Amino acid sequence: MSDGKQQKQGGAPQTAITPTREQNYAEWYQQVVRAADLAENSPVRGCMVIKPWGYAIWENMQRALDRMFKETGHRNAYFPLFIPLSFLQKEADHVEGFAKECAVVTHHRLKPGPDGKLIPDGELEEPLIVRPTSETIIGATFAKWVQSYRDLPLLINQWANVVRWEMRTRLFLRTAEFLWQEGHTAHATEAEAVDETMKMLRVYETFAQEWMAMPVICGEKTEGERFPGAVRTYCIEAMMQDRKALQAGTSHFLGQNFAKASGIQFQSKDGVQEHAWTTSWGVSTRLIGGMIMTHADDDGLVLPPRLAPAHVVILPVIQKPEMAEQVLGWCRALAKELSSVSFAGEPVRVEIDDRDIRGGEKAWTWIKRGVPIRLEVGPRDIEADSVFCARRDRGHKEKSAVKRGDFVGGVAALLQEIQDGLLARAVAHRSANTRSIDTEAEFKAWFAAPAVAEGQPTPMHAGFAMTHFCGDPAIEERIKDELGVTVRCIPIDGDAEPGTCPFSGRPSARRVVWAKSY
Amino acid sequence: MSDGKQQKQGGAPQTAITPTREQNYAEWYQQVVRAADLAENSPVRGCMVIKPWGYAIWENMQRALDRMFKETGHRNAYFPLFIPLSFLQKEADHVEGFAKECAVVTHHRLKPGPDGKLIPDGELEEPLIVRPTSETIIGATFAKWVQSYRDLPLLINQWANVVRWEMRTRLFLRTAEFLWQEGHTAHATEAEAVDETMKMLRVYETFAQEWMAMPVICGEKTEGERFPGAVRTYCIEAMMQDRKALQAGTSHFLGQNFAKASGIQFQSKDGVQEHAWTTSWGVSTRLIGGMIMTHADDDGLVLPPRLAPAHVVILPVIQKPEMAEQVLGWCRALAKELSSVSFAGEPVRVEIDDRDIRGGEKAWTWIKRGVPIRLEVGPRDIEADSVFCARRDRGHKEKSAVKRGDFVGGVAALLQEIQDGLLARAVAHRSANTRSIDTEAEFKAWFAAPAVAEGQPTPMHAGFAMTHFCGDPAIEERIKDELGVTVRCIPIDGDAEPGTCPFSGRPSARRVVWAKSY
Repeated sequence: MSDGKQQKQGGAPQTAITPTREQNYAEWYQQVVRAADLAENSPVRGCMVIKPWGYAIWENMQRALDRMFKETGHRNAYFPLFIPLSFLQKEADHVEGFAKECAVVTHHRLKPGPDGKLIPDGELEEPLIVRPTSETIIGATFAKWVQSYRDLPLLINQWANVVRWEMRTRLFLRTAEFLWQEGHTAHATEAEAVDETMKMLRVYETFAQEWMAMPVICGEKTEGERFPGAVRTYCIEAMMQDRKALQAGTSHFLGQNFAKASGIQFQSKDGVQEHAWTTSWGVSTRLIGGMIMTHADDDGLVLPPRLAPAHVVILPVIQKPEMAEQVLGWCRALAKELSSVSFAGEPVRVEIDDRDIRGGEKAWTWIKRGVPIRLEVGPRDIEADSVFCARRDRGHKEKSAVKRGDFVGGVAALLQEIQDGLLARAVAHRSANTRSIDTEAEFKAWFAAPAVAEGQPTPMHAGFAMTHFCGDPAIEERIKDELGVTVRCIPIDGDAEPGTCPFSGRPSARRVVWAKSY
Repeated sequence: MSDGKQQKQGGAPQTAITPTREQNYAEWYQQVVRAADLAENSPVRGCMVIKPWGYAIWENMQRALDRMFKETGHRNAYFPLFIPLSFLQKEADHVEGFAKECAVVTHHRLKPGPDGKLIPDGELEEPLIVRPTSETIIGATFAKWVQSYRDLPLLINQWANVVRWEMRTRLFLRTAEFLWQEGHTAHATEAEAVDETMKMLRVYETFAQEWMAMPVICGEKTEGERFPGAVRTYCIEAMMQDRKALQAGTSHFLGQNFAKASGIQFQSKDGVQEHAWTTSWGVSTRLIGGMIMTHADDDGLVLPPRLAPAHVVILPVIQKPEMAEQVLGWCRALAKELSSVSFAGEPVRVEIDDRDIRGGEKAWTWIKRGVPIRLEVGPRDIEADSVFCARRDRGHKEKSAVKRGDFVGGVAALLQEIQDGLLARAVAHRSANTRSIDTEAEFKAWFAAPAVAEGQPTPMHAGFAMTHFCGDPAIEERIKDELGVTVRCIPIDGDAEPGTCPFSGRPSARRVVWAKSY
């Protein structure tokens, strides 16, 4: 990793990240994560270390989501990390879905082995699974908490770590351990549980669009992509810059499946013993991967202001040591003043980078970290009572002098302008790469073509095909095998224009979203 | 569990919690946790479920501590849940300390066994330990992050779950899984690492006293109670109402032990390759147990206002249904007004309990949950523009009418008065049960005596003996065996008056704190 900017080579455009998105998207992603100091692989297979800058983004996501969960009546609680094997087995589809990728605790201490090295000892009577998700253990608890219809609805959320033993991992997008929240609710009626499922899907949609500046399509999953044990799974799907889809959050209507498996029963108003209706819903640190692949560019991370750990970074320009105190004093006063301004309900977050390194290297640190606004402040700016301002959503050379008072007065509006601009750009990208396709031939041609521009080693993918589908799982399976393309979701918004499935000729209620996906 | 108040029986004083503290302290504790809806045992051995009211207290603790950590320059990050066995073994004392109580992951999937039931499959080449603490895995990461003295100090904190396979568990006080924070820092010099160790000990002291209203003694642990692998362990020790000591937080100076084990090296200003000096420090959900045992009474939990999920609960008194809207409307307006008042830097937190149940039962819910202030509001109060106010730190029958405006204007001061009063009461309790003891005979008599008042089935313990000690581990071991009493800490504050160890006759630098402990 270079500390600063790549040098111009053979006339190619300069970029801070090598390779560029066009050269090798997967490797570009890893290099952005690295250059922005977000996370790294750990010595433990598949587990990541989330570094302070990456974790600060997660904290901002958590704070915004947690507020939305509480405003919709949910309360946080905490349930055990371990799930007894017998609990996982209570719901047949559920255990089937997770059996192949779970960490199993079999012993509870260590003892010296024959060669003196420590080996597992104290075998457990029943193995414990490190939670891949908590429906079964929370269900067992809900069964104790719920007696009467008066105890419903029960609206609980948990912030936790979970483990799914993935063989191929990628920082944030797919890791053996990840951080997430899992909402679990129980209701007296099917209708209330369905309402809850949709309400939380909409909370995710709002968060994705308003905080992450990432447009999403809300829809239902087909059977093959359904959560193990769910009756219906809903999701938000986003298009990444390489035109692949990312499932960014899911909300499951679980019917009475888990209530029956766990014995969540209540006495209704009429005195009848009934099973509750449950839901679960979650988003994870995967969102950080989605944010990167939606906004970052060939110079590194681009942060939507609402999630940025720092909104503004001040870079003091000190040519002569004797100027240091004056410049730093002015910068500190400016930082304090900016912190008293409110953006999106929180104080503007400001950092001052007073490290004793070259100005260019310093600026590139923050470009690669994606901070929305950079301010260079030197003696001449102070004399003119102005700051030299650059926006991360514009070219790195585009800078302009702004009067200090104007900048302070306009900083919240500027941050919102950047936030809105990022969303608009992502919406435009998705529109440009979404196509209504009505024949199998066109569908195949679009997805099969190596959509490679001249000299691009990495093919960019086709995009979203809006194509009718009869719903036959065998057809979906075949297309997945042939083209690596799946139904990302059956949208729940927009016109449900009926038509004909081009793969079967059978009727279709509406176009669905087909794409390659992460 | 009774929903309300115990009925008077045989003239005994009424209490909401049965048994009382005097009758059976250990059982009283469990019943307070239960009556306040804080936590419960889970189906997983030794693991607890933290219920919403308990978790909300933890969130308040987290928020206050997190702010203090950030104000002292620390940043949050996240490290893997699993620690490869070989990592744990890098520091000899460390693995020795944790080998007997760790959850061991040996397999990464499940397969159907001979009888069709699932059994562990996919044995790992190297077993993974579910972190009991993270010095070794964080040390391995720090070794990559630290190259030069410019990378130091490295000041990191992690909020996480950890697992220590305790055989005898007690909600909050000792559980197999618990939530905590663990700070991990690396420094260029021994002096800086020692400073950090002490600084974070003082952060814990401030938190305990100002937020929890729990007085603590800051001191150093003796060798026998030192953290496995540490050079010196410092702690905050509090006296519970049964006069036993609770270790409420620890801060470890690790010297270069873990830096050497993990290879945390840096190039000094002089170009010399050196090992870093590290520290670690942590507090956990155990603090909730300490808060309970410091303040709760025979009617249930008593919350220090700064940690209360609700500062004020409004109990609408609605005798006739037709009054409901007027009363509730008035209560909602009052709640809104109170929320605009600031207490300890945050908005006053208000709940309205509009459940359709008896007024007595309703009030007792909140008494048992420990809410600092209860307001009863009925039509007559509204007519008089006043509220009927009760404080949780006073007897439950002690209520007074206060003009609405006076209450709103004075609520922050009242909460601070309650906060201060709880601390003063706890300080007085500790003073009354701390004794300077200078002879072995008196020491033994004090600790051996079953300090039972007439008719008390549960002996209350003696308290803190301030007694000289020469530091001989054999003596400490003997006293522990004979009396169940240990050195809780060697205080670092107050007069270090030299004297003579009554157990050995040898010189002693200062009195130390002896007590029975949790």
